[in-house]
Amino acid sequence: MMNPIHQTAVAGVSGYAGAELARLLLHHPRLAGCPPVFFGRPAGPHEEIGSRVSLAELHPQLAGSIGSTSKWVEPFQWDALREKNVRLIFLATPHEQSRAWVPRLLDLGIRVIDLSGAWRLKQSANREVYRLDDADPSAAASIQNQAVYGLPELHRERIAAAQVVANPGCYATSIILALAPLVADHRVDLDRGITCDSKSGVSGAGKTPTAKTHFMHAADNLSAYSPFNHRHTGELLEQLGLDNSNIIFTPHLLPIPRGILSTIYLTLREPAEPRAIEDCFRRFYSSSPMVRWFGANLPAIQYSVRTNYCDLGFALAPDRRRLIVVSCLDNLLKGAAGQAVQNMNLLFGWPEQEGLT
Amino acid sequence: MMNPIHQTAVAGVSGYAGAELARLLLHHPRLAGCPPVFFGRPAGPHEEIGSRVSLAELHPQLAGSIGSTSKWVEPFQWDALREKNVRLIFLATPHEQSRAWVPRLLDLGIRVIDLSGAWRLKQSANREVYRLDDADPSAAASIQNQAVYGLPELHRERIAAAQVVANPGCYATSIILALAPLVADHRVDLDRGITCDSKSGVSGAGKTPTAKTHFMHAADNLSAYSPFNHRHTGELLEQLGLDNSNIIFTPHLLPIPRGILSTIYLTLREPAEPRAIEDCFRRFYSSSPMVRWFGANLPAIQYSVRTNYCDLGFALAPDRRRLIVVSCLDNLLKGAAGQAVQNMNLLFGWPEQEGLT
Amino acid sequence: MMNPIHQTAVAGVSGYAGAELARLLLHHPRLAGCPPVFFGRPAGPHEEIGSRVSLAELHPQLAGSIGSTSKWVEPFQWDALREKNVRLIFLATPHEQSRAWVPRLLDLGIRVIDLSGAWRLKQSANREVYRLDDADPSAAASIQNQAVYGLPELHRERIAAAQVVANPGCYATSIILALAPLVADHRVDLDRGITCDSKSGVSGAGKTPTAKTHFMHAADNLSAYSPFNHRHTGELLEQLGLDNSNIIFTPHLLPIPRGILSTIYLTLREPAEPRAIEDCFRRFYSSSPMVRWFGANLPAIQYSVRTNYCDLGFALAPDRRRLIVVSCLDNLLKGAAGQAVQNMNLLFGWPEQEGLT
Amino acid sequence: MMNPIHQTAVAGVSGYAGAELARLLLHHPRLAGCPPVFFGRPAGPHEEIGSRVSLAELHPQLAGSIGSTSKWVEPFQWDALREKNVRLIFLATPHEQSRAWVPRLLDLGIRVIDLSGAWRLKQSANREVYRLDDADPSAAASIQNQAVYGLPELHRERIAAAQVVANPGCYATSIILALAPLVADHRVDLDRGITCDSKSGVSGAGKTPTAKTHFMHAADNLSAYSPFNHRHTGELLEQLGLDNSNIIFTPHLLPIPRGILSTIYLTLREPAEPRAIEDCFRRFYSSSPMVRWFGANLPAIQYSVRTNYCDLGFALAPDRRRLIVVSCLDNLLKGAAGQAVQNMNLLFGWPEQEGLT
Repeated sequence: MMNPIHQTAVAGVSGYAGAELARLLLHHPRLAGCPPVFFGRPAGPHEEIGSRVSLAELHPQLAGSIGSTSKWVEPFQWDALREKNVRLIFLATPHEQSRAWVPRLLDLGIRVIDLSGAWRLKQSANREVYRLDDADPSAAASIQNQAVYGLPELHRERIAAAQVVANPGCYATSIILALAPLVADHRVDLDRGITCDSKSGVSGAGKTPTAKTHFMHAADNLSAYSPFNHRHTGELLEQLGLDNSNIIFTPHLLPIPRGILSTIYLTLREPAEPRAIEDCFRRFYSSSPMVRWFGANLPAIQYSVRTNYCDLGFALAPDRRRLIVVSCLDNLLKGAAGQAVQNMNLLFGWPEQEGLT
Repeated sequence: MMNPIHQTAVAGVSGYAGAELARLLLHHPRLAGCPPVFFGRPAGPHEEIGSRVSLAELHPQLAGSIGSTSKWVEPFQWDALREKNVRLIFLATPHEQSRAWVPRLLDLGIRVIDLSGAWRLKQSANREVYRLDDADPSAAASIQNQAVYGLPELHRERIAAAQVVANPGCYATSIILALAPLVADHRVDLDRGITCDSKSGVSGAGKTPTAKTHFMHAADNLSAYSPFNHRHTGELLEQLGLDNSNIIFTPHLLPIPRGILSTIYLTLREPAEPRAIEDCFRRFYSSSPMVRWFGANLPAIQYSVRTNYCDLGFALAPDRRRLIVVSCLDNLLKGAAGQAVQNMNLLFGWPEQEGLT
Repeated sequence: MMNPIHQTAVAGVSGYAGAELARLLLHHPRLAGCPPVFFGRPAGPHEEIGSRVSLAELHPQLAGSIGSTSKWVEPFQWDALREKNVRLIFLATPHEQSRAWVPRLLDLGIRVIDLSGAWRLKQSANREVYRLDDADPSAAASIQNQAVYGLPELHRERIAAAQVVANPGCYATSIILALAPLVADHRVDLDRGITCDSKSGVSGAGKTPTAKTHFMHAADNLSAYSPFNHRHTGELLEQLGLDNSNIIFTPHLLPIPRGILSTIYLTLREPAEPRAIEDCFRRFYSSSPMVRWFGANLPAIQYSVRTNYCDLGFALAPDRRRLIVVSCLDNLLKGAAGQAVQNMNLLFGWPEQEGLT
Repeated sequence: MMNPIHQTAVAGVSGYAGAELARLLLHHPRLAGCPPVFFGRPAGPHEEIGSRVSLAELHPQLAGSIGSTSKWVEPFQWDALREKNVRLIFLATPHEQSRAWVPRLLDLGIRVIDLSGAWRLKQSANREVYRLDDADPSAAASIQNQAVYGLPELHRERIAAAQVVANPGCYATSIILALAPLVADHRVDLDRGITCDSKSGVSGAGKTPTAKTHFMHAADNLSAYSPFNHRHTGELLEQLGLDNSNIIFTPHLLPIPRGILSTIYLTLREPAEPRAIEDCFRRFYSSSPMVRWFGANLPAIQYSVRTNYCDLGFALAPDRRRLIVVSCLDNLLKGAAGQAVQNMNLLFGWPEQEGLT
């Protein structure tokens, strides 16, 4: 049953995306008999796993019943990668780490799906936005050049062949999927600007306890943050071929555990009938099993939460030019771990939605 | 102590705004010794109060301790208005009711603060948006002409002299207060459009149980609704002197009991420094005790909830032209009952913030 | 692929338990190629489905992507049961309905898993607690005699052979599983009484919008209800062999969508060491794949939610006699739809946990 | 207007109880013109206020409007107490601090209301439960002897004359007020034990961000903690004259910001009619303005939140011996800051409920 050519590992299984990755991989039908190797995050103030712990200790929801075998999480060790013959590693680690590790992982012949922002943007942008300080800049630049932005709906073929997949940001996924069909059809009046008002659940802020993630601050509240300077903006620009003057993106912190809803406002270059908008989206996503089209029934966060779908709907003004697109997804699934598994499916040549529905 | 020239009444005390009104009026320092008369809503499927009930039965949070005297809520009766010598009535009733009653109340010499939408817009707009069917159209038109839009920050003097105050909508209050200083200074490039993305707690949807207000639908969720056709849009247009092509307003339902946050996107006609924006707001609201200026510290919903303040903050793009204004308030207070009491204070010549801080 | 000997149907798919049943059955590995037939509830004020609707319309979270085939929900029709050759039906219908339908379903040779309370108690108790009025009392009594209480951990073998499985109540499941090992070992001092303080999420109150399930009442709140007279009490008494003087059960409404936590207080007949308590539970559930033992790490609701596990933990007083058992489960899964699927697995001779982990 | 004999101070205004104290004192009618002096907590990893900050910076909900004067919070300084002629200080500080400071405060002739647990129990118990290490044990013992447990409903007269008031714990207040009338009437069968199942909102866990108070852990969850060993147990025993064998107290963490509900189970020594229970409570609290009696209508948390009331209700079993008392209060008000103000009112000879309704 053991299938070493599909041996996977997860580094950073202690976080929220890590827990979802563990759950998805343990139940993935193609990985039955070939469970992933789980590593904690390497040494750090909050995250260190000094010795072997059970997955159930880190994430009690993943415990098994009396008598079932424990899954273990090991401290990260390079040697273990070789011993276990790991062929694909998911990095759910801070971006500094991903940046430092990927060159070495590639040297070992291990493919990488990186959930951090370390490799998402073009070389110069990535270094600036994430304040990266590469040990070997030219090696990093070379990896950067071949890293593929892991949005299957846009880059399916390139992902399948990639050594390094830069898994997209959660906000970016929700916005790019809402805009890509319209941009591809040259329907957007870019001069009038696109406004992206996004709202995310608290898991997007990570597991480290902070004043912002304290229940007393997050509950019964809503707040906007990082106006005009959120890191995901760069992904929007590069993937959609826009520049900063075309788009505004404002994230908000919602009092819910998970889920993102983006309300996106734009003006069409030419007036259009609702049916033309519908057709544009249906055509663009006709082969995309992880996009659901709600049409004029606007999607709500709760329908997409705990699924790997991105749900899209729209409303057109009576003037037939101003358009609202509403996009919903689960930031830990389609916005992180689920999308990573979707990318794994592509890397391994399996159906894109395998283990995700 | 009895001060009959300030005898007030509330019709429709059974709803959420009614409960807040009852609480505010019972603790208002100028009304000590002159408690308001409380009426339920008149006959209706969900709201009828057939006989006297205690306020504590309707709203247990307003109960008193053992031995304290009960406050009572009576079925609405016209005779009672005269007997109690009511001089000012708050209508927390459906707009059809407010529309039908106001002529008769004015005949009785009773001033009105109406929390419904019945009198907020110009005659024709009001009749259309709220589908009103007046028994005596010319009397209604005449009242409409003299009704004052009850936003103290804009219409202080006219409210003080009004017979009918049309208390603003909650969303409208949050947006108008965010835009008025900029519009008054002719700073907004109206051709580029204003986008108002608003998010409200569930109390805004009223007390009648529906699929939308069911906990299972509202909790852990966010949804957009009424795109391009919410009733409050008319208030924005009239109060700000805009037309439909200048502004988009999209409300969302937040999984919290109360509070509104509006994120408002606009483009300035001329680039401006942050200080100029600050000055514009500070000057405009220098005599407005119920507006708080957060400057570049964006306000969050939870700071304004259970206060009568509207909190405002802003962020300016590096291009110094694109501007975000964030506006927060409590939809039941500054968005309804608190604003009504603020209007009462003006009607009676008291300090605007009396009983509200 | 069609496997008519396992053709299932669900009546009442429109409710919360119905949605979970639909989800579980559609993804059940043994039912691949043999999708269940979905019926709405029959005529009723809130529930009627007059004509075919898509499952996605009722439960948008169950929608498929663009291009996928719709699943349909039909109005309930007796003829359809025969046409589709249904062998097992899940009734997620009101208890009056279940009571009226089961005789007819058995006549058609269809086995039944009933999620209502109609057949859970002994004949006389059931008729009294649920105020049942049988058309044919002797037929009903005969069915009642053979109906099996569908708690697999207690009645695995009898369920496998049953024609009618009475799926347990959610509260009852959480409490019986916490007490059964101790009662079976005669460890409980019944004279000193057992106190069961249970807390449930709002989905337990059903989908019909009411004042109690309104977000404004349920959110940021906790309330006790039905003290000394909740319907699930009868299940505790019968299954544990207790009488009313031995046990108190008080349910509370939690401000969360789903999940039950029961805190259960009892006194041991003899002082015991913690290890003896651990052993008692581990032994009793050694072959129960849907029970997780947390030992001295008390379980929390969120670990069990969206799983079919019942999680158990304990704390023993320094006197070694007073014992607290904490029991958590998801009221819609182990407390309803998941347990029903577990029972189906037993009926069909499949592993108990199939499709549930 | 300045009234130096009522000059108050608050140390530790940065926490949740501190914020409520600030709000209550700033609006207290008897303190108009004599605002309290606010101090931060002294040096500590999370709490230090190194220099003067505005109250609005710490607690934006307490900000004033444009043009209003800022209230300031100063680093704690002993000299300032004398300069400002402080007569009463509220300590919202960790118990180690309260223990260390009170002797010195008394030397300065300043009365103390201490919100920590430092002085609540008898000398030996306090030292053990709170692991106190007094610099001068005999001075501490002497203060302990004269410190009064600040539950006005039990110790009104002694509080009025006290130099040190030990403000009760939030859980303890909810339970003691529910039991005191029955214990005083010798109605409780202590041999059969009292079970107190309490549930509290997250503010009870304090402002320091931890894994427990992270939104992702607290939201959509319920968990029991500290079984058989919560620190408030000692207060129950001493105030009610019980010993550990009579009572079990289990706290739970609710997914709400504030509020406590305690469900208390006991057996009466003699069967009683409901009316007798009602009378027992009504009589005991006939002069207690901060207790509300709900009778057979069980109180819910949301009615008491943001009030200083403790709400009580009950249910009696058909056997007329087993009794449930449900008790609700706001842990930050009647469970902390509100009760502290109630105690201040007694110290200063004002009506107990002044500034609290």
